[in-house]
Order: sequence, then C-alpha cells, then structure tokens
Amino acid sequence: MSTKSLTIPFDEMQELLYRLFRKHSFTEEKAKLLAKTYSETTLDGVNSHGINRVPLFIEYIKNGVINVDAEAEKTETFGSIERWDGNSGPGIINAIKCIDQAVALAKEHGMGLVALRNNNHWMRGGTYGWRAADKGCISILFTNTQPNMPPWGGKHSRLGNNPFIVGIPRKEGHVVLDMAISQFAFGTINNYKLKGEKLPYPGGWDDKDQLSKDPEKILGNERGLPIGYWKGSALSMVLDMLATLLSAGNSTYKIAQNKYESGVSQVFLCVYPEIFGDSELQEKLLTEIIDYTHDVEPMQTGGKTYYPGERTLQTRNKNLEEGIPVSNKVWKEVLKLAK
Amino acid sequence: MSTKSLTIPFDEMQELLYRLFRKHSFTEEKAKLLAKTYSETTLDGVNSHGINRVPLFIEYIKNGVINVDAEAEKTETFGSIERWDGNSGPGIINAIKCIDQAVALAKEHGMGLVALRNNNHWMRGGTYGWRAADKGCISILFTNTQPNMPPWGGKHSRLGNNPFIVGIPRKEGHVVLDMAISQFAFGTINNYKLKGEKLPYPGGWDDKDQLSKDPEKILGNERGLPIGYWKGSALSMVLDMLATLLSAGNSTYKIAQNKYESGVSQVFLCVYPEIFGDSELQEKLLTEIIDYTHDVEPMQTGGKTYYPGERTLQTRNKNLEEGIPVSNKVWKEVLKLAK
Repeated sequence: MSTKSLTIPFDEMQELLYRLFRKHSFTEEKAKLLAKTYSETTLDGVNSHGINRVPLFIEYIKNGVINVDAEAEKTETFGSIERWDGNSGPGIINAIKCIDQAVALAKEHGMGLVALRNNNHWMRGGTYGWRAADKGCISILFTNTQPNMPPWGGKHSRLGNNPFIVGIPRKEGHVVLDMAISQFAFGTINNYKLKGEKLPYPGGWDDKDQLSKDPEKILGNERGLPIGYWKGSALSMVLDMLATLLSAGNSTYKIAQNKYESGVSQVFLCVYPEIFGDSELQEKLLTEIIDYTHDVEPMQTGGKTYYPGERTLQTRNKNLEEGIPVSNKVWKEVLKLAK
Repeated sequence: MSTKSLTIPFDEMQELLYRLFRKHSFTEEKAKLLAKTYSETTLDGVNSHGINRVPLFIEYIKNGVINVDAEAEKTETFGSIERWDGNSGPGIINAIKCIDQAVALAKEHGMGLVALRNNNHWMRGGTYGWRAADKGCISILFTNTQPNMPPWGGKHSRLGNNPFIVGIPRKEGHVVLDMAISQFAFGTINNYKLKGEKLPYPGGWDDKDQLSKDPEKILGNERGLPIGYWKGSALSMVLDMLATLLSAGNSTYKIAQNKYESGVSQVFLCVYPEIFGDSELQEKLLTEIIDYTHDVEPMQTGGKTYYPGERTLQTRNKNLEEGIPVSNKVWKEVLKLAK
C-alpha cells in the first residue's frame, strides 16, 4: 500500500458496499452476499478483485453487461455433473450458487462438477476455494478469460490467464492455491511501474517480441508471459478447452469478440474427502507435507517457505485487527457511488 | 537423436520387449501390455520413459522394488470414487487398470475418480491420457514423485516435479497435455549438457543458490526450478497433497525416505463428455480454440503454434513410417537383457 491509503474496518466496508449494492437494485440477500464477498476479498489483501474492482462492477451494471436480476439456472444434469447457465447475472452470485451446488453434489456422490456458462467475472477465484473448504470439500476450479497471453511461438494474445484454484480443507487453516496462468497479473506489473521498479523475472513481451522485465514495455502490449513459457501456454489452452466443452459455453476466442469481458465459462469440481472416514489421517498427511516444506533451510537468511493460503490467513487476521488498507482514491470513489 | 542412434521398427521393438518381459516372469497378457506401452511411448518420441527406462525397470524387478506378480486392488469405494492399492506392482500395469476403472466409472456416473497408492513409476503419464481419450473420456491425472525441486524460498529439494496430465478426446487428434511441474526434466538438462549447450531459460539452482542456465551447475545439485517460480512450487505442493489425501498414500516426504522412487500416489480423474449428447458441438468448440491459436502470426518467421499433443501425433506417424530413433547403447543393453 502506498502512503495514499486508509485503513477501513471490515464491518464499515461491508456496510458501505451493502448500501451501494442496494442502491443498484440488488435484493437484500444478494446485496449482503456481494458486500460480504467484496469485503472478504479485500480483507484477504486481494484489493484488485475486491474494493478496487467495485467501480467497474457498477459500471458493468449501468451499461448492461451485468444483469442485476438474472440468476444462474441448471440446464442439464447427468449423475454428479451439471451444466448451468449464468444468464449474464452478477459473477459472484452465480459462482457462489454453483460452488454450493458442487459441494452438495460432492456430499451426495463423493464428487460433483458444475460447469457454468455465460457468467460474468467471478472476481477472486479463491473465494470459492475457501468457501468449499469451509464446507469440508476439496475443490478444483477454473475460469476462462479474455485473451492476454500469446500462445507459445505466437505474436498476439490468444490465450486467457485463466485463473486456476485448488482448495483443500484443513482444521488448522485451509490450503488454497489461487493462481492465474500468467507469471504476473497486469495489476501487479502496473504496481511495479508505479514504484519505478523492474519485475524480478520476465513478465511479458515488449515491442520487439523480446521477453522483458520492464513494466512499461510490457504494459504497452498486453502480451503476458504464461508460467513456465510453453508449459503454461499449453495449460491455459486446456483449461479453456475444459471450461468451454463442459459448459458448452464461450471460449476465449468468443470472449475476445465482446467489447467487455463477459460471458465466461467456469468449472466447479468438488470432492468430499470425509467419505473415506479417515479425516484424522488426512489431517496428519497434510501436516506432514506442510512440515516437510516448512522445515527446509531458507535460501536467504531469515527467509521462509509457505503453503498456499498461509499468508492469506495471516493478512486476514492482521486486517481484521488493524483495519483493511485501501487506496484513498478508490475509497472516495466508492463513497461517491454509494451516495 | 545423436549420430549414435538406430531406427527400430515399432513391431520389432514390441517383440523384443515382450520376450524380455516374459523372461522376467510376467504373464503373457502383462508382458504384452508392458511391451506395447514401452514401445508406444518410444514411438511417440518419449524415449526417456520408453525404451531408455527399460533397463532400470528390470533392475527394480531384480532388487525387489517392483513385485512382478502384485496387482492393484480396490480398497474403498464411495459413489464414483475409489481408492486402490498398487501393492508395489509394475507401475504401468497398475496405472492402466486404474485409468480403465476411472473410465468405467465415468461412463456410469458421468465422472469417476480412482486414487492409487503404493504404485511404482507409471513411466509416461501421457499414456493414460491418450488411453482415456481413445475411450472417449476427458482425463485429469497426476502422480507425486521423489523430491527434486526446492519449495519457493527454500534451499533443498522438498517437492516432486509431479507430472500433470490433461487429456481431451477429439476426432481429428486428441489433445493431451503431459507436463512435469519442473521447467526442464533432468533428462532434458542432461541432453543440453551432452550437446555442450546452455538451457534457453533458467532450469534450476547452482551451488551459489542462483538460478542458472548451465546444465552442469544444475545437474550437480538436483534442485530443479518449478514452472512459474513460486506458482509451480505451490502447484506441485497441492498436487502432492491431493494425491496423498485421496489415496491415503505416501507423500513426497515419505517417498524421499525410500532408497528407490517407489510407493508413489496417483490420481485418475475422468469425465465422459458424451453424457451431454452434443459431441458435434464439443468438437466444434475444440476446433474453434485450436484454430484461433493456430492462426496467430508467428513470433519468428516460419514459426508455428501447436496444441498439446499435436506434435506427439506427428512424431508417432513419422516413427511408424520410418522406424523409431533409439540410442545404439540403449538398444544393445536391452538386447543383452533379453538374451
């Protein structure tokens, strides 16, 4: 956070956002769920998909990209698999409905999959990983996006950064991996630019088709680098294929034809590990893996290794106590929108 | 391939390997399946997990790591999920049994998951992705391994490169992503060393804890670099967690305690997309994504982009026609073993 930031208590943020969403015609229940989700995301330190994104969400409502009243509907079902249509409703509301349904299917069948088409941006993918874990479910989740990375060997962006989430319930703190397939988010690259710093590793392609650590050179092109070069390129492609196929929805190719990022395809896969009746063993096995990686000698003095989700929990607890750091500019904008 | 290579017709390789495996007490059926799998893997150009690996497979039989007669057994079942125990049998035979079972579950329930513990190395993970795709199933597969990459920020290898496979059936050629979570396999790094070349991108850590492109410096340490740095580190960790939890098997931590890489945990997840009854639409959607990425202007003149599995199919067809390139030294060794 820059010096131009405030700290806002969680409840204050939630109340303000609730008022804002009520003002924009959401029902009490939906306004509450949206306010809670945007606030929790910000509480966890993911401002980019929390409070910072609220003005754009309101803009998308105003210009009709997001249909406030639309709800996700089940269109097909077979065994423990369902297809849903998001009907261009609010991304968070639709995604919560679908993760809850995948959890319900998993509790009934051991495993459940919901494929959702025509949804809007679900904001932080990790939201649904944490939610499923709170309900005792393992989750594997992904969404496609607009193109923002070239396929390996190609000059123009034709792949989405397609966030990929794995959530694993654990008593002492869930394990939640929430990563885009790009090496750096464009928001992160922009933060380096604002600080006048180079990226620590190449993050995209410059004008001369060279990999670059220079934020300015990368931002001009919107050609991000997939993790692992050709490997992430392939991974992004198959995630798009799976989301598109399973939901019978739009691929990145189709999404690219819209003016706004909308009508995306998402997959919610849950497994209910309690079916095996050995939760204690599972907890022990998880802790074994975490301890083994924690105990490693750090590469830099004073360094540490973390399991996915560990620092999120630290940030959450810190911000709950001290208030959530928020950009002054963003907060003013949201206050104005809520008036 | 170096100049020290032969080309062997597919059938000749299969027959030799069949003789070799029969000599080592495999039943006719199992010897046939093993010979076919090792030959097909080599046919597809993955010599490292095909013919090159056969001598080590025989060694593991001789020293008792692999139990020739052991078979994978189902230990638990709930809905469309099953746990199996590999009983230290031959990795390929066990894995084929489990992928076939995951396919059968998927055809019955729409989706099926088999988690296998105590298996030996399954060789090329892609084998099972291609196999499931031939039977009309989408597959998501992964295995844990011995530690060969440090967790991000750590000095010593505590994570496996945990190969991850996604297979998608397609009439004009299946899509099969088969990738380890390391940027380069140690075998690949060794090939660069033999050619006296540097890696094109950093592939591991040198003695001074610096990322390096120098094959010699990396090979001395066996500290590989995960794809996407901290992202691949996290991805590798959650794959180990999932494989271990779901199978109630060994984690990389436990596998590290064995002298040989053995007793690994594997996951076979299949979805049967024909349940939706719109195979033509699905084929169209896949082609749309492939065309979109194929049509991109190449970054280098004459360059091309590929979908995962595309080049495997090209190699397969070429080697079927022209014979399979095999190292002279390896072929001699296998001939000797089969005598």
